[in-house]
Parts: sequence; C-alpha cells; structure tokens
Amino acid sequence: MEGIFTANNVWMMICTALVFFMHTGFAFLEIGLTRQKNTINILFKNIFIITVGLLLYYIAGFNLMYPGFEEGSAGIFDFAGFGIAPPENGMTPEYADGGYTWWTDFLFQGMFAATAATIVSGAVAERIKIGPFMIFTVIYVGLIYPIAGSWKWGEGFLDQMGFYDFAGSTLVHSVGGWAALVAVWLLGPRIGKFKDGRPQAIPGHNIPLATAGVLILWLGWFGFNGGSVLSADPELTSLVLVTTCLAAAAGGVVSAFVSFLSYKNLDLTMFLNGILGGLVGITASADVVTPESAIIIGAIAGGLIVFAVGFIDALKLDDPVGAIAVHLICGIWGTLAVGIFSTNEEHSFLTQLIGVGCYAAICIPSSFLIFFILKKTVGIRVSEKEELEGLDGHEHGMSAYADFRMNEH
Amino acid sequence: MEGIFTANNVWMMICTALVFFMHTGFAFLEIGLTRQKNTINILFKNIFIITVGLLLYYIAGFNLMYPGFEEGSAGIFDFAGFGIAPPENGMTPEYADGGYTWWTDFLFQGMFAATAATIVSGAVAERIKIGPFMIFTVIYVGLIYPIAGSWKWGEGFLDQMGFYDFAGSTLVHSVGGWAALVAVWLLGPRIGKFKDGRPQAIPGHNIPLATAGVLILWLGWFGFNGGSVLSADPELTSLVLVTTCLAAAAGGVVSAFVSFLSYKNLDLTMFLNGILGGLVGITASADVVTPESAIIIGAIAGGLIVFAVGFIDALKLDDPVGAIAVHLICGIWGTLAVGIFSTNEEHSFLTQLIGVGCYAAICIPSSFLIFFILKKTVGIRVSEKEELEGLDGHEHGMSAYADFRMNEH
Amino acid sequence: MEGIFTANNVWMMICTALVFFMHTGFAFLEIGLTRQKNTINILFKNIFIITVGLLLYYIAGFNLMYPGFEEGSAGIFDFAGFGIAPPENGMTPEYADGGYTWWTDFLFQGMFAATAATIVSGAVAERIKIGPFMIFTVIYVGLIYPIAGSWKWGEGFLDQMGFYDFAGSTLVHSVGGWAALVAVWLLGPRIGKFKDGRPQAIPGHNIPLATAGVLILWLGWFGFNGGSVLSADPELTSLVLVTTCLAAAAGGVVSAFVSFLSYKNLDLTMFLNGILGGLVGITASADVVTPESAIIIGAIAGGLIVFAVGFIDALKLDDPVGAIAVHLICGIWGTLAVGIFSTNEEHSFLTQLIGVGCYAAICIPSSFLIFFILKKTVGIRVSEKEELEGLDGHEHGMSAYADFRMNEH
Repeated sequence: MEGIFTANNVWMMICTALVFFMHTGFAFLEIGLTRQKNTINILFKNIFIITVGLLLYYIAGFNLMYPGFEEGSAGIFDFAGFGIAPPENGMTPEYADGGYTWWTDFLFQGMFAATAATIVSGAVAERIKIGPFMIFTVIYVGLIYPIAGSWKWGEGFLDQMGFYDFAGSTLVHSVGGWAALVAVWLLGPRIGKFKDGRPQAIPGHNIPLATAGVLILWLGWFGFNGGSVLSADPELTSLVLVTTCLAAAAGGVVSAFVSFLSYKNLDLTMFLNGILGGLVGITASADVVTPESAIIIGAIAGGLIVFAVGFIDALKLDDPVGAIAVHLICGIWGTLAVGIFSTNEEHSFLTQLIGVGCYAAICIPSSFLIFFILKKTVGIRVSEKEELEGLDGHEHGMSAYADFRMNEH
Repeated sequence: MEGIFTANNVWMMICTALVFFMHTGFAFLEIGLTRQKNTINILFKNIFIITVGLLLYYIAGFNLMYPGFEEGSAGIFDFAGFGIAPPENGMTPEYADGGYTWWTDFLFQGMFAATAATIVSGAVAERIKIGPFMIFTVIYVGLIYPIAGSWKWGEGFLDQMGFYDFAGSTLVHSVGGWAALVAVWLLGPRIGKFKDGRPQAIPGHNIPLATAGVLILWLGWFGFNGGSVLSADPELTSLVLVTTCLAAAAGGVVSAFVSFLSYKNLDLTMFLNGILGGLVGITASADVVTPESAIIIGAIAGGLIVFAVGFIDALKLDDPVGAIAVHLICGIWGTLAVGIFSTNEEHSFLTQLIGVGCYAAICIPSSFLIFFILKKTVGIRVSEKEELEGLDGHEHGMSAYADFRMNEH
Repeated sequence: MEGIFTANNVWMMICTALVFFMHTGFAFLEIGLTRQKNTINILFKNIFIITVGLLLYYIAGFNLMYPGFEEGSAGIFDFAGFGIAPPENGMTPEYADGGYTWWTDFLFQGMFAATAATIVSGAVAERIKIGPFMIFTVIYVGLIYPIAGSWKWGEGFLDQMGFYDFAGSTLVHSVGGWAALVAVWLLGPRIGKFKDGRPQAIPGHNIPLATAGVLILWLGWFGFNGGSVLSADPELTSLVLVTTCLAAAAGGVVSAFVSFLSYKNLDLTMFLNGILGGLVGITASADVVTPESAIIIGAIAGGLIVFAVGFIDALKLDDPVGAIAVHLICGIWGTLAVGIFSTNEEHSFLTQLIGVGCYAAICIPSSFLIFFILKKTVGIRVSEKEELEGLDGHEHGMSAYADFRMNEH
C-alpha cells in the first residue's frame, strides 16, 4: 500500500514537472509564430503568468477551485479560505485515495491554472498593452478559472449532473479560448493583417522554436493528461498516454493533408496546429475512449483546425498563433466527443453540450467585462507607433536579438 | 507486488516520454548543422516521421515486431494482425513479468520505431525531394524496421542464436545508418560539397540548437537505454544510466581530443558527435558491462567518429550531420563490443558479427530497392535551382526566420 | 518494502535526469545573455564541464566527497580510493535506507558536481582563455568541490557541528559563486563594459534562449531539490517541490517589481534572474520551511538580486550573466535563511554563518591560487584583438550562426 502511494505520488510529481515544462512550449510557440520585435514582450507576459499564476493559486485559487462544497450546496461558488493549510491526513495514503499528497495536489493543479491565461496571451500578441493584460491575468487566473473549474473538478453542479471533462478540453482550453476570442474581437487586428478585407500572412520569425514548442507541449501533455488520472494506475495512465499520442499524430497528419489538398502546400504551421488540435481534442476523453476512437477524435480535430483558421480569418479576427482554433474549437469538439465515443454509458452528448454552454456563459461575459472596462479606462491597445516599431523597445527597452540584422516590416 | 508493478510502469512511461523528447533533439541537431534555407523542410520531415511513424506502428508495426513466433518457426517473419488489441492479461502484473502494461509496451516501442527514419533524414538533408522521402519513411518504418526488429526483440532467429543488442546499437541505429549510407550514395553530394575532389565545409546555421539537440538526445538516452531494461529494476536501471553517461562523456572527450590533435582546433561539432558516438556505442551493451568497460567503449567510439567522418568524406559521400559515422559505424562498434566486454559469458564476438551481417543483409538491399525505384520513377533529388535557393521556399512556401537578414550562399 | 525501494530509486533516477538537463538550461542562459561572437566558446566550455566533470567524479570525486570519515576523524579530508567499486550491499534496500542504489547515488551526485564550474563559466564569459579555464575546471570540479562538499554531505566536521544545507545553496551555488567572484576580479571587465567609470549595457544576443534556459533550470530544480530528499518520501518530496516553486515565483515577481520601481522598465532579464535567485535562495532550506516562509525567502532573494547586480557594477566587476548575484549572494542568503525560518529548532543562525565562512575560507584562496598561477604563467585573458573579433573564430574556427548577418559591435 505504501509502495503504491509512493509510486503514485512520484508519477504525479513528474506530471507536475511536465505540465510546468509546457510553459516553455507555449513561450516558444508564441514567439516563434510572431515577429521578432515583440518577442521580449511575449516572453515577459509568459513569465508573468507562470509566477503570478502560481502565487495567486496559492493565495486563493486552490481553495476556490476545491472548496469542498457542502451537501445541498448549489455547487456554483464556495471558498475554503486563504492560503493552503493542509488537512490532517493531507500527507497520508488516506488523502485522495492514496494518489498523492496535499502538496502534490496543490502544485499539480497550480501548474494547470496558469495555462488558461497563456492561451489568451498568444491570441492578443503583438498589440496588447502589457499593463492591462497583467490585470486581466490576475482576475482571470485568480478568480474566473478556479470558480469555473469548481463546477466540475471541485465537485460542483456540473459534476453532479454527470458532465465529463477528463483533463480540461473545456475547463482549461476553452476557458482560455473564450477569453481569447473576446479579447481578439475587442482589440482588433494587427496593422496590416487585413488589406482590402483580405487576410495577409504575417510570417512568424522563428519556426524552429515554434516547432520545438509544439513538441514540448506534446511532451507536457504526457503529464497534463497522464497526471489527470490522479494516480499512477498502470492501466489507466498508460491508456491515456496511448490515446493522447495517437490523437496528436492523427490530428497533425490530417491537418497537413487537408491543408495540402486545400492550398497545394506542405504547410508546417498547419501540421503543428493539427497536432495541438488533436491534443486538445483528446483531453476531455483520454481515459474513456479506445485508441481507435482517439485516432478519429484527433483526426476530426485536425480537419477542424484547417477550416477554423480560415473561418476566423473570414470573420476578420486576428489570432496570430491560431489559439482560438486550437483551444476553443477543438476544446469544444473534444468535450462533445465524450458524448459520442465514451465507453462509459453514463456520458451523454446532451450533458456535454450543456457543460460547454455553461462555460461559455461564465467565460464570455466575464472576459468581456474585464477587457471592456480596461478598454474604456486605461485602453488595451498600444499606440500605432509602438505597434509598428515593436513592443520590445517601447515597453521593455531591449531587443530579443541584439546582434542580428533584421529586415524591416 | 502491485507496488513494484506500478513503479515499474511509471518508470517505463517516463522513459517513453524521454524517447519521445529525443525527436526534439534530432530536429535541433539536424537543422542546427545545416543551412537556414532548408530548415522548414527538415522540420517538416521530422514531424512527419513522428506522427506517421506512430500511426504505422499502431496499424501494423507493433504486431510485425512482436508477432509471437510459434515454436518451430524460422523466426524471420510473422504478423499478429492489424491494430493493437490487448491480450487478456495485458494490464496486469502477469503481462511482461510485471514490468509494464500492454499500452505502455506499445507506446515505448512505437517511440523507438520512428527513430530509424529520423537518422536517415539528417543524412539526406538539403537535397532530397520530400515526397519520395515520405514514401521511403512509410515503407522503412512501417515494414523493414519492425520485421528486422522481430529477429531479435521479437524473439526471432537471432535471439534464439544468442545475439545480443540491449537497446538497439544495431536494431535501431545501424538499421537507420545503413539506409542513410545507401541514400547518401544514391543521392550524391550537395552542390558545392566537393571542389576539385576535396570536401568543403558547409557550416551549420544554428550551433546553439545543434548543441541543445545533443544534450536533449543524451537526456533522451536515459529513457532509451534506461527503459530498455523493461522494468524499473533498481540495480539494472541505475547501472544502465551510469554506463550510458560515462560512455557519452568518454566519447565526447576523446573525440574532441583526437580532433584537436589532428586539426589543432577545438571543434565543438566533433565534441558533440563524439558524445553521440559514445551513446550509440554503449547502447548494445549498457546492461552487461562495467562502468570501466563503458568508458572504454565510449572512448573508442569517440575516436572512431573522427576517423569515420574523414573516411566518409574521402569516399565522396556527403552526410551533412555525420549520421553515418555516428549511427552506423558506432552502432556496429557497439554491437561488436558486446562480444568483447560483456560480463555475460554466453555473449560471443562471432554471434555479434553474424548479427551485424544479418542486419546489413536486410537493410542495404531493402533501402537500395526503395530509393532506387524512387530515383528511376519520380526522382529523389530536387532541381539545382531549388537546391540553391533552398527547399523551404519551393516545397513549403515559407521561411524559417522571416525577420532576419541572411548571408547569401 | 521492495516496492518503495523501486519507487524511491525511480524518483532519484528521474531527478538525476532533471539535474543533467540543467546543463542545457545553463548553456542557454549563458549564451543568451552574451554576444553571438562568443557563443561557440561558451558552448564548448559547457560541454567540456559536463563530460570531464562526470569522468573526474568517477575517477576520484565521488570518493573524495563521500569518503566515509572514520569516527574521531577531523572530518576535513579523506579519500576512499579511485574508481567506484560498489559496496556489497550497494544495490539493495539496505543501502542508503532504501532510497536508491549505489549507481544512482554516484550519478545523482556526479550531475551536481559539474554545476559549480558552470556557474563560473558564465561569469568569466567573453574574455577568458579556454585552456586555462579547462585547467581550472579540472582542479575545481575534481578536487575542491568534492573536498568542500565532504565537510557537510560527506558527514564531515560541519555536518557534525549541525550546519544545514539541504540541496546546496552553499555547497554548490556559493562554491561556484566564490570562484566566479575571484575569477571576475582577476580577469577584469570586458572591453567597453565601463566607460568613464560607468557601467555600459552589453546586450545579450538571444533572449528567447536565455528565457528558455531559466525555465529549464527551474524544471531542473524539481530534481535538484526534489532529489536531495534522497528518497521519494511523499510528504517531503512534495513539500520541497512546493517550497521550491513558490520561492522561484516570489523571487521573480519581487525582482521585476523592484526593478520596475527603480528603473521604470519591465526588465525581463531581472525577472529571470529573480527567479533564479529565488531558486538558489530556497535550496538550503526547501525541506525545513513552510510554503509561507518559502515565499518570504524567495521574495527577499528577488529583491537582493536587483541591488546586488547594481553593487557588483559599482565595484567595477563585470559579470555578464549575473552569476555572482544569483549564486553567491542568494546562496549565502539562502544558507542563512535556514537559521531564521527552519522548523527544525536545532538549526541556528550562528552555525549557518560559520558554515558560510568555512566555504569562503576554502573557495576564495583555492580559486585565487588556481587563477593567479594561471594568470602569471600562461595568462588567463585572450588578446584584445581576439576579444573584439570574438572567441569563436579564434579558438574554434567557426561561427554559431553562419547564415545570419550580424551587427558590428
């Protein structure tokens, strides 16, 4: 028993480390797909999100997300108090069915928390003012994410209703994705993104780092999904890794193939986003579907990505890294896919749809409110001069690649 | 018992993740040692190999490699059917002596499968047509690698004969290396590689990424060799990590030293390739040699690298990343080294030599056949114009570093 | 029992891998914060340190550091012989209280050994001659580090006195930091660093890699501190990860905030160094403080960094990567913090201060002696011409980014 507890806890700590490493992946992906003149700014935002996100989760987030709803509670909001005082049995096999200790629990969940804001960061890159973005991060990561999370993972009303989201297609990815959508809409496109109403490619400045970012994210997903088993249960954890990897592979291949058929081009960026789409898509169901279903879920996610990117362009929304397509569209798809492919008969498409709707109903208004107030007060967009010259020099007084000669654009 | 099973499976899953991460290492190494104009192309190939390799291993590879030869079978070819239906005891400690579950088994081996094609990718970089390379990958990863692998790891005839290859000096590295040799020969050197019969240096464009690639590969080898114990057996796994790291260190140091004596230059690339040579060299014997022997094996591999690189140049073969020296030459050396240094008296030099020969006998003809047919039909080499201008623009319509100004060459 | 032993050993092997990965982080950080013309040189030094460091630790370091002082020994120096012959019970749960095997023990500690020299490498970058630096590395990593380490971790006199340094704020970080200070002083500043007595910014050439370096180092600290528990004890290891991460986050945030107040600039480099300062600061006490204390320790470290960087500048010392501020200043602070925040009443501020003094007393003279002799004989500084043109061309005959056009400076 104690041996299993130790092994479980080891697994969960490693998964925590892997989810932490995803922040390197996000950072590489975001800077790689944008222009060098905004690199420092993006990195600063990412580092801010990780550090502040973790501190906020310590201060209140963890206890907002896992408040221990009392019986008969509506399961919508509760708070277990500031700080993280471990319960008496927090370090023993009695805690969490011997899956891990209280400390591991906090840290694993804390690493998840920051992810939602990171998703937004990519979508608003290259034109958002950093101050207002920091304020958004603090509110969204500190309050909205954990409260919304409590509805399912904190055993709130959606959990009681039978809604299922294994590792966060909805709770993490579309929570970030909805805010990204709202923010992109309120911010407007980057200068030069649309010319005569037609979208223009603004090429990313470092595709090797973007590619490494996706591979690191895939690696991190071993922990993101593998750790969401909440123990090292050999059958479940290993099934989860298999479904996760197969969905990622299928998503990438289908995305590259569809985009080749559509544009006669072997598009690396689409290949990469297809992998991410497959990963986001499988995240809600990784432990309750067969490998065959995982391939189908991933493949559909990969196809969706290609069309979603085009659709978002057509709406005149400017999402430099494709975050809305990857995290929102594939997040929704993955959540609904539980209702189609789950081997657990209690999962239903309708309940999944209700869940998706509930998260839209908290994320859209709350992120709108935050960004709208910020827009009307301090403003959320940098000046035209700053946008053209790059945020790095204006906001941070430094350059990402001081020794290199750059093209103008 | 269940505690050990859980711990074993945790270790194997982590090793799977580490082997997966090696693909980031390979990608960094390959792009780092080549020119920026072909970066997207190399990354696309690598991403293709990982995703398609995994899907192929799911479809048929795993069951070709571990077909469960019946008694009395010749042990050369068998196939257990499409897909991966787990056996009844696949998730219990009864499976694989409690080392891991069926799912873990599949995924760990699947991560290995793609490696062979990745080795080829580096050697043929900067001039191969991507379509034909994809076809080669599908056949070589989907068919040749698993069939050849079944001879030893699938308990085929070489296994019955007493041939030993712990983690794949031959089964992975020289399987890739032979195909690299054949491909490089059929392709011909890059334009400008040989002038008046003398090899010209074509400098890599991003040595920091190449260096990181080697460090990531070394890290990945913790899983590649450590996981090949097929359990978390404390003595064996930790011995394997020690021999692996010491061989890597010795390989690097000797390679740098020999190359300093030969060329009066502190050559970082040679240092890095020496590390890789040491790693490939120890791979066949990591669990059956002492740390002292590991240092000797690695040191010899490191020395071999320097001479092999010169020898391959002298043969007018153009291998931009040194894949043939690292994976083929050191792969053979490592396999033979089992016969010299193994603490297991049943291992013999002659049997090891026979094993090396058998793999040459399947890999050379099969890779020749694939590439030769491709050459005579669709062609395997890009046009001179495309080669000079770079494959990125022509095959992928994008540039790896859009914002940076480049030198012409 | 055997299950726990296996799980413990798995954890320790993973931590070993993570500490190894820190060398990638150090390499990225050092090259990122310096100029491209010295990149190959820095990478060569780093690769040299890892490989030679590991071999030296095999040859003698391990047995210098853990000599098994006999009872009544002064606990200052002893040596258990060359090579690593495992004791009879080295692979059984009897060894090291079932925490790990002898092989794991060696490799985990070996990965630590190289770190001390790496710290120096960053501080002396861009102007030190590589030959003399190699000689320093061999002596400092091969002799000084393990002997000094034996005083505490080898159960020497400081251990007997009650000095506490959990994972090496002093034993690793300030051992490296003191030598960095001495070396920087003997070397003198880079050409152009001080103009009319005022420090000039010499911008780093690749901030994305520097940022990734810090994130990789943070990840590696999961193993550095997590592994220093020397078992997978669920309560202790998970507490250590929580304190480590909270201190890192607090260090970063405070450092960025203080530097914003001081310089009205959102300084990414300071943010990053604050994270590292927090990590170094918590390293001595990670297992004996509460999460609340960890935040305070990290926050103070983060504040210290900003002032230390300014102070070192004022002393006309040129430390391109801030290694002295991070590793020496925060290392001392972290060691003293044990005496303030430890939940173990036996820890005392005075003993901690004595410990800090003892390490100063061995590190300053020994590193001075090595560098001073080298300076007076072979010289430790490259020629002005070489410094201006870059060490890469002169010492290594190659360029880190051959395809890119560079700015002159």
